[in-house]
This record gives sequence, C-alpha cells and structure tokens, in this order.
Amino acid sequence: MSLIVAKFGGSSVADIERVKTIAQRIKRMQDEGNNMVIVVSAMGDTTDELIELARATGGELSGREMDMLLATGEQQSAALLAMTLNNAGCDAISLTGWQAGIVSDSTYRKAKISDIDTNRIQTELDKGKIVIIAGFQGITPGGDITTLGRGGSDTSAVAIAVGIKADRCQIYSDVDGVFTADPRMVSDARKLQFISYEEMLEMAILGAMIMQPRAVECAMLNNMDVEVLNSFNDNPGTIITEERNMEQDRVVSGVAHDLNCAKIAIFDVPDQPGIARTLFKALAENGINVDMVIQSAMRNNHNDIAFTIGRDELTKALPVVEELVKKIGASDYSYGDNVAKVSIIGAGMQSNPGVAADMFEALADEEINIDMISTSEIRVSCIINEDQTQKAVIALHKKFDLDRS
Amino acid sequence: MSLIVAKFGGSSVADIERVKTIAQRIKRMQDEGNNMVIVVSAMGDTTDELIELARATGGELSGREMDMLLATGEQQSAALLAMTLNNAGCDAISLTGWQAGIVSDSTYRKAKISDIDTNRIQTELDKGKIVIIAGFQGITPGGDITTLGRGGSDTSAVAIAVGIKADRCQIYSDVDGVFTADPRMVSDARKLQFISYEEMLEMAILGAMIMQPRAVECAMLNNMDVEVLNSFNDNPGTIITEERNMEQDRVVSGVAHDLNCAKIAIFDVPDQPGIARTLFKALAENGINVDMVIQSAMRNNHNDIAFTIGRDELTKALPVVEELVKKIGASDYSYGDNVAKVSIIGAGMQSNPGVAADMFEALADEEINIDMISTSEIRVSCIINEDQTQKAVIALHKKFDLDRS
Repeated sequence: MSLIVAKFGGSSVADIERVKTIAQRIKRMQDEGNNMVIVVSAMGDTTDELIELARATGGELSGREMDMLLATGEQQSAALLAMTLNNAGCDAISLTGWQAGIVSDSTYRKAKISDIDTNRIQTELDKGKIVIIAGFQGITPGGDITTLGRGGSDTSAVAIAVGIKADRCQIYSDVDGVFTADPRMVSDARKLQFISYEEMLEMAILGAMIMQPRAVECAMLNNMDVEVLNSFNDNPGTIITEERNMEQDRVVSGVAHDLNCAKIAIFDVPDQPGIARTLFKALAENGINVDMVIQSAMRNNHNDIAFTIGRDELTKALPVVEELVKKIGASDYSYGDNVAKVSIIGAGMQSNPGVAADMFEALADEEINIDMISTSEIRVSCIINEDQTQKAVIALHKKFDLDRS
Repeated sequence: MSLIVAKFGGSSVADIERVKTIAQRIKRMQDEGNNMVIVVSAMGDTTDELIELARATGGELSGREMDMLLATGEQQSAALLAMTLNNAGCDAISLTGWQAGIVSDSTYRKAKISDIDTNRIQTELDKGKIVIIAGFQGITPGGDITTLGRGGSDTSAVAIAVGIKADRCQIYSDVDGVFTADPRMVSDARKLQFISYEEMLEMAILGAMIMQPRAVECAMLNNMDVEVLNSFNDNPGTIITEERNMEQDRVVSGVAHDLNCAKIAIFDVPDQPGIARTLFKALAENGINVDMVIQSAMRNNHNDIAFTIGRDELTKALPVVEELVKKIGASDYSYGDNVAKVSIIGAGMQSNPGVAADMFEALADEEINIDMISTSEIRVSCIINEDQTQKAVIALHKKFDLDRS
C-alpha cells in the first residue's frame, strides 16, 4: 500500500472519453491498494481558447487577470475527473490549487511554488478519497490566484509529492519514457529504465517534451524519484532518479539532437576588455539566448567570435548584430541556419576520460565536420551541418553501444 | 460620489463585444464619480455547456463537483471584464466568490449566503479600483466552492450591496424594468417607476424574468432599494423599494398572467379528517407544487376538491392523482390544461376594500367566466379559460387605470 502522486497532461484529458480512460487506470491503481493523489492539466486546448478570449479584449493583458482566467481550465478538468471517478464507484474529490494549499510567489504567469500546506489533501486522503488537484496553479499569501508557467502541472505534481512524502511520483504523457535517442531518427533506440536528474536536464528538448526542466530541478532538489509513463498503454516507463541509484556501467545514456539552431560569426573583433560583454549583453537585453560561444585565436589584436542561438530567434538577432558590428568596430559578420546540435549525455562521463575523443572519432569516421564544440561535466555537444544530423546521431548511438541493453 | 453595486446577467456578457459595451457603461459611471462594484454571471451559455460536459461523464452528478465546475463560468467572465476595463484605462480587479468573502452554507447547487466578509472588497475599493465579483458562487466555512442556484447572481449582488452598505444596487438585464402588464399583451402597458418588494414577489413570473424572488426577499429583508435597468439602453428603470417610499394613490400596480397553469378536480371526496393532507402530501412528495385550491360546499359528506399546478407538471401529477382517487375513495377526477391565471397586484389593496369586486366585475363585463379564485393581502388571482387571457389582462389593465400615469 503506497501513496502515489500521478500527473496527467492535457492530451490525457483532451475529452470526456479520455477522462474515462484514465479514470479506469486510476481506479485500477486504487484497487491495487494505493492511495492516489492526481494532478491534472486543462482539457486539450482549453487554455489556448481562453487566451484567445483574453486577446479579444484587446490591449495589454494583466498577469493577475490572465491567471484568474486560465486557472479555470484545470479547475474544470479536475471537477470532471472527480465526477467520472465517482460515477465509476470511486470516492473522489477535486481541489483547486488554493484548496490544496499550494502557495506561490506573485510573479503571475510563471509563479514559483513557495510552500505547500498539505492539511486539506491529507484530510481527504484519510477519508479514503482519491484527491484530484488542479495543476498549474497556486495562490499568493495575499489570496490571489497564480499560474506556474509552462509545464506548471509537472512542477505541481513533484512539489505535492514532496509535500505529502509520496512513495511514488508519476508523470503520464503520450510517450513511453526517455529513449537513448529520438526513435524517429534511430530505429534501434532503446527506452531507458533509469536516467539521472542531471542527464534528464541535459537532454534538453528531448527530455523537455516529456517533463519540464523546472519540475526535474524540483525533483532533484528534493531527491524525489519521478516515473515518466504513457497514459495510453501499460508499458514500464523511465525512472528519473539520483545517479547513484542507477546501473553505473553506462558511460553515455543518450544521444540528443536539436535542429532549432542557428550560428552567427562576427569577424575581426578588436581585442579590448568588455567587448564580449557588450556583445552578449545586447543580445540578452533583446531576449535572445546564446547557447554555444567560441572565440578564435587572436590575429593582430583581433578575434573572430562565433555563437549559436535558437533558429527561431535569428530574425530578431540579426539587426542587433548588424548594429553591434558597427559599434564595436568589427569588420563583418555572417550567419547560417543550416546547422544542428548533436549531444551525448551520460553521468558516467565524469569518471571516464576520452569520451569526447570517442565522439569526435565517430563523427570523423562518418566524415562529419565539427563546427563548434561545448561540453559540460556530463554532456558533449557539437555543432554540425544540419543535413548530417541523422547520420551523426546513428553513428554516436552505435559508437557508445546504446543499441545494446 | 456614491457606492454602486451593479449586476450584469449572462446576456449582458454573452460575448466579448457585449463585455466591451458594458465596460464603457461602467467606465462612464466611474467617471461620474461613483465607486463601482460589479457582479457578473457567466458568459451566454457557458453554464449550459459545462452542464453538458458533466452529463457526459454519466451517472449521478455530485453537487460539490458540479459547483466546482460551474463556478468557473463566472470566474472567467469576471476576469475578462476586468481585463476589458483595464484596457479601457480603468483600474479594475476581479474576485471570485471566496476572494470576495461570500460565505454560504453547503447545500450545493442552491447554497444560501450566510455571511459576507467585505475586507477584500473594501481594500480594493480603497485603492480606487473597480471591483468585479464572480456572481452565483460562495464558499463554505470548510473552504468548498458552492453555487447559489437559479438567479444566484442577483442574490450575490443584493447581499454584497447590503454587506458593503452600498448607496445603490442595480440589476441590469435585457428589459427596461417592471411594467403594469406584459407589453407584448397590453399595448399601453406602462413601466413602473417604483414597485414594492411585496408586489415584486407577487408579480411571480412577470417579475421573476427580471429579478429572482430570492434576491427580492434578500433586499426586502435588508431594506435595500434595488433598481432594475436595461443594460442595452439608458432608459430609467424601476426601483424596487419599501411600500412607504412609493406614491400611495395607486391601488393596483400591475396585472400579471401565467399560462403555465393546469387544473385538476377530484370528485366526491369523502369528508374525513386528513384527507386533504393525504392528497397534497402525496403531490408534494412527488415534487409537484400546488398553487390554488378550492373545496366545494359539502354534499352528503362528500366534497369536490379542485387545485391548480404548473402545466409542465401535469404528466407527472396525473398518475399520482389516479392512485389517490382509488386510495381515498373518491368517485372520479378530471383535468384541464387550457386554463390561465390572471392576477392584479397592488400594495394599495390593503387599504382599499372592494378591489376584488371590481376585478370580478371587469371580467364579467367581458363575459369571462371565473373558475377559481385566490387572494393574498396585495393580490387577487383568478383562473380563467386560456383563450380569454389577453382579453382579461387588457380589461383589468383598463379597469384599474394602469394605462394612465
């Protein structure tokens, strides 16, 4: 008999039929003797429809009022799931974020959970009820409704699991778990049984499709194991946990790739203190996130500086760069949006030197030219030509034996 | 500078365009130097759509979960109106029922307001904000969301007006006010400048289309004047107030009619103690409301008993009556659904004997046969043949000089 917190995303509650499907799954879990706390997102595209209504009012949208509006989506799906469970003979009760005691700061649209008062949840659990909680929302100490921003429901689930000391925290989406590579790109990609918090975070996009980084950080911070599962089948999922809980024979856990990648190079940047700062500050002020940066060896007091950004931010970045080139007295700049980033991720790297070398070798064997390189303790990333992405991912997947369990 | 509570019903916030229209009206009221508290219903048929979703879950619907679901409708319209006002340059904030401190009992679907903690409302007013409150909802002392049942938003508005000691309470709908008769039936029906709480209640359907009886009772109980207005024009409305505030020369204030009327007669009912009780208890137990009752003079220890019910309840009532006739040993029964009720309402009646006689005379002059009669201190109602309804209403309207201001 264990206490389980399970989160079901928007696709799992897209319509009443799907709500009935997950209700059956929840019923089964209860029948197996578990105490259940369920966190739900809003049904399908409810949130988008509400945002559209808000836009129709015209003008600026107050964060507080937006949260007041958007929070209704999860409240609705929570109530509907509770009804469905009641109709299935399960004693269930729905709670809003504030009823569940989820206290947050007052940064509307992307509030951070500051505290959870678990009294009400505990009281209902003690009555033997299945507790359905509206995810994605909280309440300020002043009594105003907030929403937690993208992936907020994942964070709600983890925070609640930590708060009530749950035995298990499950995140249900429409994928089976975390794979060694994108199965659409690598036919023999395997689902991982375990992955460390750090690896999950380094998986970036590949991982974020499954669970929001903020939620992973919250789990890591509180040392809460999280199981990612598919709400449409009974396959075992992937458990996100501490590194030491994992099989350690693995050096590389997965190969990730990111096509949302563009490269900008600035030539003959005068080598003066603070130039780099000027450059990246200007980009940051325009809300452009710089990923990788390399500075070439100096030639007569001038450098070439190259960096990558999200491809979708290129049009926003170019005018800024244009102006900067003049301002800092560089000779010229170039850009390319036909690049991609391939990464190998593995907690095992820390204790295994030479992994990067193996990566470069694997790419060289395929005659894939490496444009830029960045590394972290458990990740090595290379910028390559976009056309060679699949070839690179397959080669790396093979090189590090990810096709073999 | 006065403090005004104004309630706008579903038709006034049916879509964003209408929300913008009433926002302009609210802005104008504020520009005139008033402090505004606005109570809103859910947009158009939001509530019906939510009920449909709930029905789709199948089975019985938990009152608590239904209220959890339905309360989101008003929360949405409140937030959207606040945004619209903000965009129009007015500082507005939306509050849910619980944020506005509206405490109720826990009879879900038709909860009664037990208390209002006006702290939050007052705080926001003191900041110079327009306070938008989600109507139709409250919160139990235990922290569960409730809804107040049909016309709940009217009751919210009156209760809040009383709670914050508002100078004026306005109910906006899509009619200009209370008329001396249904204008669709009497061409020269006049809009009343004043009507007493008691008269408004006796107006039954005619009045209920404009303001729910529960809300009228709440206003009467707390002696709060209520102004009913049309949200789509600037015509002066009707003020519902204490009798003594009104011009007293008026004997009859209005003529009401009700076509949702059916008559059932039971013949040769043995004159035994408790027979009537048995009869009406059985009907009540089947949720059938009996309106008028007459018992004919006794013939050899047997009576005829006739009564009226809502026409829409006839099919539900007949089997009950069928069985009762056997049970109590009556000879037979008959029914008719081609009857109507016409009433004259007027607080002045109390001090003017002979009003009923004038009514009967007016009907007699038109050769309208009176089937049943019932009276209250300020109302006389007659059951007549449905086909003669309009003729009767016009005659009574004329008889009591209602066409003349």
